[in-house]
Amino acid sequence: MSFEQMWSDLAPIGRAASSGGYFRQPFGSAERECHAWFLEQCAARGLDVETDGNGNTVGWWRSGSGPSVLTGSHLDSVLDGGAYDGPLGVVSSLAAIDRLRERGFVPDRPIGVGAFVEEEGSRFGLACLGSQLMTGAVSSERAKELRDRDGTPLLDAMNAVGLEPDLGDSALLDGVGCFVELHVEQGRDLVDRGAAVGVASGIWPHGRYRFDFTGQANHAGTTRMEDRHDPMLTFAMTALAANKQARLGGQRATFGRVQVEPNGTNAVPAKVSAWLDARCSDEATLAALVAEIERQGSQRAERDGTSLAVSAESVSGSVAFDPALAQRLAADHAGADWPVLATQAGHDAGILSAAGILTAMLFVRNPTGVSHSPAEFAETADCLVGVDALADSLERLAGPGAPR
Amino acid sequence: MSFEQMWSDLAPIGRAASSGGYFRQPFGSAERECHAWFLEQCAARGLDVETDGNGNTVGWWRSGSGPSVLTGSHLDSVLDGGAYDGPLGVVSSLAAIDRLRERGFVPDRPIGVGAFVEEEGSRFGLACLGSQLMTGAVSSERAKELRDRDGTPLLDAMNAVGLEPDLGDSALLDGVGCFVELHVEQGRDLVDRGAAVGVASGIWPHGRYRFDFTGQANHAGTTRMEDRHDPMLTFAMTALAANKQARLGGQRATFGRVQVEPNGTNAVPAKVSAWLDARCSDEATLAALVAEIERQGSQRAERDGTSLAVSAESVSGSVAFDPALAQRLAADHAGADWPVLATQAGHDAGILSAAGILTAMLFVRNPTGVSHSPAEFAETADCLVGVDALADSLERLAGPGAPR
Repeated sequence: MSFEQMWSDLAPIGRAASSGGYFRQPFGSAERECHAWFLEQCAARGLDVETDGNGNTVGWWRSGSGPSVLTGSHLDSVLDGGAYDGPLGVVSSLAAIDRLRERGFVPDRPIGVGAFVEEEGSRFGLACLGSQLMTGAVSSERAKELRDRDGTPLLDAMNAVGLEPDLGDSALLDGVGCFVELHVEQGRDLVDRGAAVGVASGIWPHGRYRFDFTGQANHAGTTRMEDRHDPMLTFAMTALAANKQARLGGQRATFGRVQVEPNGTNAVPAKVSAWLDARCSDEATLAALVAEIERQGSQRAERDGTSLAVSAESVSGSVAFDPALAQRLAADHAGADWPVLATQAGHDAGILSAAGILTAMLFVRNPTGVSHSPAEFAETADCLVGVDALADSLERLAGPGAPR
Repeated sequence: MSFEQMWSDLAPIGRAASSGGYFRQPFGSAERECHAWFLEQCAARGLDVETDGNGNTVGWWRSGSGPSVLTGSHLDSVLDGGAYDGPLGVVSSLAAIDRLRERGFVPDRPIGVGAFVEEEGSRFGLACLGSQLMTGAVSSERAKELRDRDGTPLLDAMNAVGLEPDLGDSALLDGVGCFVELHVEQGRDLVDRGAAVGVASGIWPHGRYRFDFTGQANHAGTTRMEDRHDPMLTFAMTALAANKQARLGGQRATFGRVQVEPNGTNAVPAKVSAWLDARCSDEATLAALVAEIERQGSQRAERDGTSLAVSAESVSGSVAFDPALAQRLAADHAGADWPVLATQAGHDAGILSAAGILTAMLFVRNPTGVSHSPAEFAETADCLVGVDALADSLERLAGPGAPR
């Protein structure tokens, strides 16, 4: 089955008619349909499917011996997300297997295509949950505490769709020597460089911080402006400050999620909680940026008669993918090298790299750079270059003479 | 049953253990319990209960003849609201009936105690819904379109608790000559004046406006700050501008309710909707304030590459209560007059006044002025002065020689 056919199979699943965006939250019906489709595709290719108790799946092309080569990505989306973030990597991996077989390539070692669960953290709030559980980066105890916005615990959500959860380290990664993940680019570096594909050098450090602004609920009509303790004002100024600080420093800071109490039209809020997503070129810069945003927020809180408490919900350090591996994949394609570039987005590849697995990533050009949005896009021609690039990479990693 | 006993009857109903605030949304279980309690209290006093198809109730003390005198207030609360806003007027009305009977007063005309539904607009978004339906200020057609946050239509919510809705003009107000509503003060005017009770001169004009800020959803990590169209920034600046403009002009402007799409931690929002509650000393000032906030918001939207659309969801004009009536109630209490003061809060009294009923309001001192909050409060001693004041007012309105 061709790349285009696979892509159109997935297109309608979990797509909102209103926005055109995808709602494929983990263990929801749309995401489960994608996983069922993945199992069918593995079966059609004679791949030997293994699953773990975290919901992760790998389809193995058993061939040769020694340390295996893993590829793949994820099938879940952010809320109202795009079609490419995740599925492009899974579909391209399956298409790359087809391409290798068309070429008559016989791997010297096993090649696996993986689909990891809850990469986005859109339901349980912890990104790369599947890969973090399987590598032990997140403990099963912590995962068991996770609940979605409706209060449903992770285990209940898994049981509800017939999975038999057994959270924690899994044998799926046993014997895996290296991992290569293909992903749609989420910025415009490849556009600027005029290249269809590129190789990742690393991932910026990234943190999510909860900002709780507490004031005093009051009547929106009768309370004089000067008598208020309105946390919405403190939040508003902090959001503007975060944007400005990140802009000035060439970094990233976003308040994209807000929760207001009581959230009534005629009440000055008692509390505003807002989540800061911050990413910087290095860890010291990240810490300094968040500290500066907190400082400006606290200063404004003093003026507003409110208070600000900041708690880090997750902070991941910077990831440097193996430079020699990146170079080996990028070098010498029809006489030219693919560009090597950094990314500001977290990926399962970052988790596997941190767990000591030799890891690389390929990016496919995104004309507008828009991602996490219904407008996310890649040209089919570029996607097909991506499939070839991944097939080439797997040849270099699983062919004769590949380093063990 | 004494005022204090009635007050402690109501105290636990719909109270959240966490905040101490009340959740008595219309046609919810807590609010229905309050209404059932009200019916019991009417029955215990031999009041003749009439209801209408909007959910409003009046208990009548049938005595004398001619145009009747209505008092009362409402039993619903804002989300996480205080104990006094609404129920103080209902309980004080019942206690005032008791006081009049203790005094041996026999009314020259009927006196009714009313409980109006959905005064706060906390469930269906339209304040004073019960009184606006019964006076025809809101049509039954419009009311039938109303839905709560869960999408439940008004009629379904009423049917679900066994009411038999028949929305629109009701006979409950037939023959009503005047209305007087007692309410906890929601500001600190009476504190500043050192008075336990006061009389209202009128209500400021008041509007609710929906501000839709539209941008472009995008990845919070990979999208450079300068490539974003982030509506959260436009909202933030607009909220700060609204506060500043209202403060400078001695008016009121509040953004207390916000809704973000997709509201994900790692996505630049596609859209932020926020509701402006604005109230001014006169209608021209209100229009100018809202226009200025919209102007500043639109200016910032241009800078952010976002757009702003403003729609008025409800605007109520200023209410001037009958000055002669206010003067008659305020004058000559143990040699002194009660203060007469304006309010910035909407009330059913404003709706009945606009419908041509001679209307007055009494306020009871609130030590901190805090309202629409669990911290809302009035001293029992002041509440008892309020009961006496309401009894005095009813005597003046329903006694021999009262103007017809």
